[in-house]
Amino acid sequence: MPASEGATYAPVPMPQPVVGPGEFVFAAAYLDHGHIYAMSEGLIGAGATLKWVYDRDPAKVEAFRTRFPQAQVASSDAEILADPDVRLVAGAAVPSERADLGLRVIAAGKDYFTDKAPLTTLEQLDAVREATARTGLKYAVYYSERIHVEAAVLAGQLIEQGAIGKVLQVTCLGPHRIGDLETRPNWFFERDKFGGILCDIGSHNFEQMLYFAGARNAEVVSASVANHAHRDHPMFEDFGDAHIVMDNGATGFVRVDWFTPSGLSTWGDGRTIILGTEGYIELRKYVNIATGEGGGHVFLVNDDGEQHIEATGRVGYPFFGALIRDCLDRTETAMIQEHALKAAELSVKAQLAARDVSPAIR
Amino acid sequence: MPASEGATYAPVPMPQPVVGPGEFVFAAAYLDHGHIYAMSEGLIGAGATLKWVYDRDPAKVEAFRTRFPQAQVASSDAEILADPDVRLVAGAAVPSERADLGLRVIAAGKDYFTDKAPLTTLEQLDAVREATARTGLKYAVYYSERIHVEAAVLAGQLIEQGAIGKVLQVTCLGPHRIGDLETRPNWFFERDKFGGILCDIGSHNFEQMLYFAGARNAEVVSASVANHAHRDHPMFEDFGDAHIVMDNGATGFVRVDWFTPSGLSTWGDGRTIILGTEGYIELRKYVNIATGEGGGHVFLVNDDGEQHIEATGRVGYPFFGALIRDCLDRTETAMIQEHALKAAELSVKAQLAARDVSPAIR
Repeated sequence: MPASEGATYAPVPMPQPVVGPGEFVFAAAYLDHGHIYAMSEGLIGAGATLKWVYDRDPAKVEAFRTRFPQAQVASSDAEILADPDVRLVAGAAVPSERADLGLRVIAAGKDYFTDKAPLTTLEQLDAVREATARTGLKYAVYYSERIHVEAAVLAGQLIEQGAIGKVLQVTCLGPHRIGDLETRPNWFFERDKFGGILCDIGSHNFEQMLYFAGARNAEVVSASVANHAHRDHPMFEDFGDAHIVMDNGATGFVRVDWFTPSGLSTWGDGRTIILGTEGYIELRKYVNIATGEGGGHVFLVNDDGEQHIEATGRVGYPFFGALIRDCLDRTETAMIQEHALKAAELSVKAQLAARDVSPAIR
Repeated sequence: MPASEGATYAPVPMPQPVVGPGEFVFAAAYLDHGHIYAMSEGLIGAGATLKWVYDRDPAKVEAFRTRFPQAQVASSDAEILADPDVRLVAGAAVPSERADLGLRVIAAGKDYFTDKAPLTTLEQLDAVREATARTGLKYAVYYSERIHVEAAVLAGQLIEQGAIGKVLQVTCLGPHRIGDLETRPNWFFERDKFGGILCDIGSHNFEQMLYFAGARNAEVVSASVANHAHRDHPMFEDFGDAHIVMDNGATGFVRVDWFTPSGLSTWGDGRTIILGTEGYIELRKYVNIATGEGGGHVFLVNDDGEQHIEATGRVGYPFFGALIRDCLDRTETAMIQEHALKAAELSVKAQLAARDVSPAIR
């Protein structure tokens, strides 16, 4: 079957800014993970106005202002929380501290948008569920490997349009490059802080499984983690995998690791393979290996044939505008709160259930 | 990184016939699965002499003799078992009857070569283990998706040569096309006969996990099966998946299904993705979707870059000659007996452990 541009499926129109200058003001607070840059870009691209930046580390603040000079430097997070202009606080704190920050943002009457994983313990999850239910305020999560990847956005549209029938299984491979260990902060290697590999980078994948399968709940039926090759950092995990059964009978599997070889042309060969009753979709998100092509590939196989659809520039990232409108309109169109937290719940439960398959003793 | 022909890794020389005419005589008995053709071709290509064919159904015998006119028609399997010329009996009986046939072949003092899955119950497994241990005779298994796929053979050579370091995880996707239901025999839909989907087509994948990871044993940590879309055949299973932890700390995952869409250019987009400490290998065994290319693709990514290696015509199928020599020399070079049976054990145990995730009641 020849490759085609998937003419049978029309992408939804590219998203446009949903507000004008000053209509939706946000702050960036806690810059521990570099995702805060993409989170801010996403919001700004959808029309939001960045007013403040805060971090304990002046060097991080200065670097952030090189890219976002419009951000005023706050002297404390309290200064941001006290500003009535600020509707939403975007944060990329150390994972174990994300819930505490979010609860303080919500207590200040503002919506919160955190980097994933949004939390690292079931106690934090309970507190977040209670606070969001009580206040109606948002604890939104930047599950970037779906919401900020056009191939994944397009896959969602195709599934919605019935391109592969009912989804039966979602397999996610999330390899990452560890790079120069010296450039990693200490928290990166401390399981209590990053939450474990299935919680940290696994959370992207639990979210995708639930989303693509259209499930509301799931059970982790097995999981494993390991530190195979980084024993100088005994509390690190460089490998994890997990198998889940969802409440609609679909299943999911995720493998995450820090073993991207130096010869790969990007940081990780992220894949998502979605099996449906009427066809399947494969996402080659960041690279199509050994073709010289970059990322953004949707492969769709169904009764119409085999199609290779380049997603780049076709669908954009509707999440950010939807989140802004949700904050203004008190709706839930970008992502249902319970969906975001269910993915977090599975991430933490997979971590708790995981068998350590590391060689010999730790 | 550019695609290359993987010049760093030299395939082992193509296998040649290991015996001359008449030096190794075999018979084909029970033709229920079409794999008997490829099993016979493999043996003949390695030098074996096909003397007999037997099946209860004269039409199957006649069809077989169209391709293999040299095969004499036996009036019963007893006639084959009584022939001292016959060293090995190749069989593709209904899966639930494969062990019984094998035990009779072994009782007649001959080696046995069965289509996969080689057996369907733990009781059969015990009997086969006892008979092979007592007699030293072989109960060899045609795990075609590895031994009769050049991409998989080449992957084994690459791993042996250290191309991806220590193997940590093997993910196998084994979709199959069900085709016209009317052409399928009754046993195809009866779980007691085909053994369940994880036993039947799953067995290929358990064998690959153990082989590529270099493991001797494993535990099935979770599994699921379903009949999602073939409820007219209530004892059929059209979906299965399983997660295993191997004795060397590597893990494995398999998804098998009968949902290949009609638009795919072949019967199934079989993949094997092997993660190692120093790189990874992806096999696109039967098709490289949306490229117009057929099968036989090895993708190797390690510190040397991203390589696309076409395996077709490069490595052949050394299993068959090795099996013949093993039978003559009483060695175990083609496949260790316990490895073949361990894969069968995992297949049956996955089936027994599987949660039924079918929608509603069966």
